Amino acid sequence: MMMKIENVKAILFDVFGTVVDWRGSITRMGEDIARHKGVKNIDWPAFANAWRAGYKPGMAQVQSGERPWTSIDAIHRKRLDQILIDFGIAEVFTEEEKTNLNKFWHHLDPWPDSIPGLIKLKQFYLIGPLSNGSLTLLSSMAKRANIPWDFIFSSDIFKAYKPDDQVYLGAINFLGLQPEEVMMAAAHNEDLAAARFHGMATAYVNRPSEYGPAQRKDLGASQDWDIITDSIIGISTKMA
Amino acid sequence: MMMKIENVKAILFDVFGTVVDWRGSITRMGEDIARHKGVKNIDWPAFANAWRAGYKPGMAQVQSGERPWTSIDAIHRKRLDQILIDFGIAEVFTEEEKTNLNKFWHHLDPWPDSIPGLIKLKQFYLIGPLSNGSLTLLSSMAKRANIPWDFIFSSDIFKAYKPDDQVYLGAINFLGLQPEEVMMAAAHNEDLAAARFHGMATAYVNRPSEYGPAQRKDLGASQDWDIITDSIIGISTKMA
Repeated sequence: MMMKIENVKAILFDVFGTVVDWRGSITRMGEDIARHKGVKNIDWPAFANAWRAGYKPGMAQVQSGERPWTSIDAIHRKRLDQILIDFGIAEVFTEEEKTNLNKFWHHLDPWPDSIPGLIKLKQFYLIGPLSNGSLTLLSSMAKRANIPWDFIFSSDIFKAYKPDDQVYLGAINFLGLQPEEVMMAAAHNEDLAAARFHGMATAYVNRPSEYGPAQRKDLGASQDWDIITDSIIGISTKMA
Repeated sequence: MMMKIENVKAILFDVFGTVVDWRGSITRMGEDIARHKGVKNIDWPAFANAWRAGYKPGMAQVQSGERPWTSIDAIHRKRLDQILIDFGIAEVFTEEEKTNLNKFWHHLDPWPDSIPGLIKLKQFYLIGPLSNGSLTLLSSMAKRANIPWDFIFSSDIFKAYKPDDQVYLGAINFLGLQPEEVMMAAAHNEDLAAARFHGMATAYVNRPSEYGPAQRKDLGASQDWDIITDSIIGISTKMA
């Protein structure tokens, strides 16, 4: 069901892929550190995708109850240890360097349209992430990249990962708003489907190169989302 | 025990009284609305203090378990309804106007030194509130007054009020830091005593006129806090 977007007072943003380019950022940082360490012949875009591939399975173990609450930083780190072995570079890095590698996810760069779009939207709406990132990840990222959030909703606040109900319902409750007064903006149809299920307004941001040339999912809108666009500036054009 | 302030990576701020002047702000907003409504002869500074006097008893009911979790907005509203009667102006305001009156607490003005001090400190530290305010209160306040928080820790995130342990411990845990890497800044000795008990660094900001001329508590530091000053700029001078 389409919502009246005139009712919206707050806009919540998925972060990985929607606001920031994790694949390009991890690739750049990987290439940098490889140069520094004299490591050659690593396919860093493939490394980024392999790292990201541990994200959903890691969260799924928490969501199923198989693991107790585990922060995304711990999930990232467990996966990192595996792919450093897979890519044959586990011996290259000290423990301290691995700790810093894991913070790549705290230092992702926004897509070029994200900051200008958010600055515009912030004039008219409360804006914040609704992300599976941790509070320390999201606040470090925002500080470094000047992302002008009004507040931060992280998975560790809710002790749950999207698309679990309590994330969306918890955010709406914290804001003291009705579901239709809160818009979810994401590059992922699944995220928007959950938001719509809970009565939120929805904005789809098409990011067909989030995963690189081999991307097969989220190449377009799967439903009649309230806004369908290809940038955060695109949301601001329709909303502000 | 004094901490080494060189270890500090994040500074958490009490808000009511430390960062914002609730008494002056409520007084100004009260006088404004009184002019608008043609209400005369209300002692607005006394009204502000009477409103604030409901704060600790309201939280104490939650802390004792007498009431289930209740947001500060609900505590403010319950007290407002009482003092509107006490001051003889309950009939002056519609329900909608009372809802807006309660949002006075979302629109408090910072002390003159707060924003310049926070801007400076933000260059070197993660900064955020650790407040008994709600997330919607603190984010609305920050947006209106341009308070440059990196994140917001509100009582509703922890479902607890300071000085309960889980507020301080929860914040340290979210930040992924050691207690001594986190500094609590407050105008209230009780708040700093709890922070120090949990191993945090402490900064006392003397605000001897927070409650007006009749203030009897927190007229000075009660312990050898790591920083003792009279403004947020004073903290930035020592830390940045």
